[in-house]
Amino acid sequence: MSGPQCTRLSGALVKQVLDSVDSVLFDCDGVIWRGDQAVPGAPRVVTLLKERGKRVFFVTNNSTKTRKMYVDKMSTLGFDAKEEEVFGTAYCSAMYLKTVCELQGKVYLVGSDAMRQELEAVGIRQTGVGPDHVAGKQNDWANVALDPDVKAVVVGFDEHFSYMKVNRAMQYLTQPECLFVGTNRDSRLPLEGGKAVPGTGCLLQAVETAAQRQAQTVGKPNRFMFDCVASKFSVDPARCLMVGDRLDTDIMLGSNCGLKTLLTLTGVSTVADAEAHQKSGCAERQKMVPDYYVESIADLLPALQG
Amino acid sequence: MSGPQCTRLSGALVKQVLDSVDSVLFDCDGVIWRGDQAVPGAPRVVTLLKERGKRVFFVTNNSTKTRKMYVDKMSTLGFDAKEEEVFGTAYCSAMYLKTVCELQGKVYLVGSDAMRQELEAVGIRQTGVGPDHVAGKQNDWANVALDPDVKAVVVGFDEHFSYMKVNRAMQYLTQPECLFVGTNRDSRLPLEGGKAVPGTGCLLQAVETAAQRQAQTVGKPNRFMFDCVASKFSVDPARCLMVGDRLDTDIMLGSNCGLKTLLTLTGVSTVADAEAHQKSGCAERQKMVPDYYVESIADLLPALQG
Repeated sequence: MSGPQCTRLSGALVKQVLDSVDSVLFDCDGVIWRGDQAVPGAPRVVTLLKERGKRVFFVTNNSTKTRKMYVDKMSTLGFDAKEEEVFGTAYCSAMYLKTVCELQGKVYLVGSDAMRQELEAVGIRQTGVGPDHVAGKQNDWANVALDPDVKAVVVGFDEHFSYMKVNRAMQYLTQPECLFVGTNRDSRLPLEGGKAVPGTGCLLQAVETAAQRQAQTVGKPNRFMFDCVASKFSVDPARCLMVGDRLDTDIMLGSNCGLKTLLTLTGVSTVADAEAHQKSGCAERQKMVPDYYVESIADLLPALQG
Repeated sequence: MSGPQCTRLSGALVKQVLDSVDSVLFDCDGVIWRGDQAVPGAPRVVTLLKERGKRVFFVTNNSTKTRKMYVDKMSTLGFDAKEEEVFGTAYCSAMYLKTVCELQGKVYLVGSDAMRQELEAVGIRQTGVGPDHVAGKQNDWANVALDPDVKAVVVGFDEHFSYMKVNRAMQYLTQPECLFVGTNRDSRLPLEGGKAVPGTGCLLQAVETAAQRQAQTVGKPNRFMFDCVASKFSVDPARCLMVGDRLDTDIMLGSNCGLKTLLTLTGVSTVADAEAHQKSGCAERQKMVPDYYVESIADLLPALQG
């Protein structure tokens, strides 16, 4: 009845928890790496989990890479990973548009080339990737040429985000039947050394404010990403551990799907954040309290090596 | 006790209301013009009000023009207006930074050249106007060079809005002592023919989401713009009429300052919107119910010509 307690995972408890699960879902940024550096010990943790017969999956809201690009990065950083184990929002958004929305038509894409590739891999055409600088005057912006085949606006991370992209997305979304999908709402992308840059949530907020509509988001904490994993592999939620650094995305996803949850302190959220949610008395906030926490996923190593 | 009633202003009531005021504050976009076209009859209304001894002021959240640029546009459209009668957010933001914030230091400006001019006119230096396209990788963005003299981030309308501007603003705002000011929160800029383009509110939302901070806004419904007028001219709020097309900015400003309020239906809000606020039973929403409404400010003409 008391809900999750955010217990420190150490000593004999580590083996006990690992024995209770068959699958482990890892968030990436802030969990197994920060920016371009692996979290020390993280590659070994993944390898040993697999050697112990666990299924390992990588579930990330970051939309800047295809599954293949993720595997390449992982390989460079020393991780053992296969394409089918990687669930990023570039891939999952394409799956969402194809399987849930059954989209017939083109996408206006505020996003990366990786998103373009994942859309095209499932047969969805798109327009919009790359710079779109402003030209002309207000009346030209309001009357900007729209592609009549576009039936959905998709917003992911886009380093070429611009006023004209907000405007173009808004003009498409004025059509009530135009779908509106965002990859995720993360406000910041954490990097090494406590630095960060603006995340997709900032871009999505701008488009939502202009369109006066809310996007459906694919990424965590929406359960679609877990459903993606579960539909391809036989995953029993009760025997699955979600490992993440963010309470509002990773831990909330775990709670939404009935998974065990583990917070690692190498990224965004703190134990104090979790305790504040626990003490709030609010059921929705208590979904962001993890079952366990570790300083780093390297804390799992002794139990795995033993 | 019943609050404002949103009564149609016509017949003998027009003269009665006009006789009860000495000053009239007009919003611009959607009230006296739409895009580059004057609302028919509006220039004549302004002229006749002045001939009847009323003080007339123009109070606009639009930050793309200096006072001088407004007077030039007004002159082209047939309006009789002087610089000191115009209160736009480019000018008022400069006044706000100088008089309320007493800013010592430079501004990082997400905004227009007009805002740069108004800041410089009161002796405030700025950086940031013009295109700022993305270059390099995430780590370069997080370590972008910051001007140590910058002590405030100001966000207004900026057609060159870009990911790098959100990022630069966020990096400045990570410093807790850096001030954060927005010109206004209007989500859309209405144009002729029911068209619109994204407004400053979209850009501000993006920066606020990245910075995880709320900006102080200068524009309506914040009472600073009325205080700007009242501090320069002797204006009795009880004998002042605020005329606008938006309930959430214009009418709310009027309510916040104890002015009489008149909604005109040539812009954003409708009588149905006002009635929904009236029926809500919510005190905050009832502040957005105008005392009166007209189809167009040209409806004031018969009483003024009589």
